Amino acid sequence: MSKLVPAVMSVSGFEAFLHRKIPLSRAMQVRVVRCDRQELELAAPLAPNINHLGTAFGGSLNALATLTGYGVVYLLLREIPADGHIVLKESRIDYLSPVRGQLRAACRRPPPVAIEKFQAGFRRHGKARLDLMVQIAGSGRQAAVIFHGRFVAGR
Amino acid sequence: MSKLVPAVMSVSGFEAFLHRKIPLSRAMQVRVVRCDRQELELAAPLAPNINHLGTAFGGSLNALATLTGYGVVYLLLREIPADGHIVLKESRIDYLSPVRGQLRAACRRPPPVAIEKFQAGFRRHGKARLDLMVQIAGSGRQAAVIFHGRFVAGR
Repeated sequence: MSKLVPAVMSVSGFEAFLHRKIPLSRAMQVRVVRCDRQELELAAPLAPNINHLGTAFGGSLNALATLTGYGVVYLLLREIPADGHIVLKESRIDYLSPVRGQLRAACRRPPPVAIEKFQAGFRRHGKARLDLMVQIAGSGRQAAVIFHGRFVAGR
Repeated sequence: MSKLVPAVMSVSGFEAFLHRKIPLSRAMQVRVVRCDRQELELAAPLAPNINHLGTAFGGSLNALATLTGYGVVYLLLREIPADGHIVLKESRIDYLSPVRGQLRAACRRPPPVAIEKFQAGFRRHGKARLDLMVQIAGSGRQAAVIFHGRFVAGR
């Protein structure tokens, strides 16, 4: 199984890409904190993402989860290698408990069979979709937020 | 049927409340553009909410829809009158077509029977939930984005 990204450059490159292309990620102070063969993890401090209750704003949590899922699709396309447009078609999010500190969203690399299907579909048809789950950490072992998104990559 | 807000003050008050308490709404440059007996409408310019494709970022669209639904619950609580904590428990969002200009999210005031149930539930139990749909305008008559959220208000 290949690594999630071929080189460390892609990680810092992805963070720079986000900040340059999606200004909200800069306002949220999003950073890539982990990117290896298991998962991609993005984080953001609470202060720019706080709400009226002193916890993380649901819109920020959703945006961070969206960027994390997007990042996994972006990196899987790079592995082909291919360049494509990625869009989120739909998502569902469950806010299970409030996030009281740093926001941390993790998306596990999909199983090999799903990656193969996605990459082969993109090679063959120039379009492929991928369903991903992103979890946002809570104070304990349980996730505070669970996000499911359907991403579509196209040429 | 009462108006969505008792006085114009509440509208500008709501915008100031958002900007003060939820800094992301300030970064997004969210404004209240309509608030009457039919609906609440929030808007935000494209520039701070743009993505890598030159259209509105999904995370911004979700955050704007979340704030709009939140606003309707906030105003319905004010009508009781009551002060409560409002949280979003879960949401689902469908991105049907890209948003290429200003982001405009509208949430219709629920039917009287749903308002009565929500307000009576809050008075009686100090807690009540409300399911709301928010639509984000597209270039034509069709909505570009449809959001469904379950909000819970508690003391």
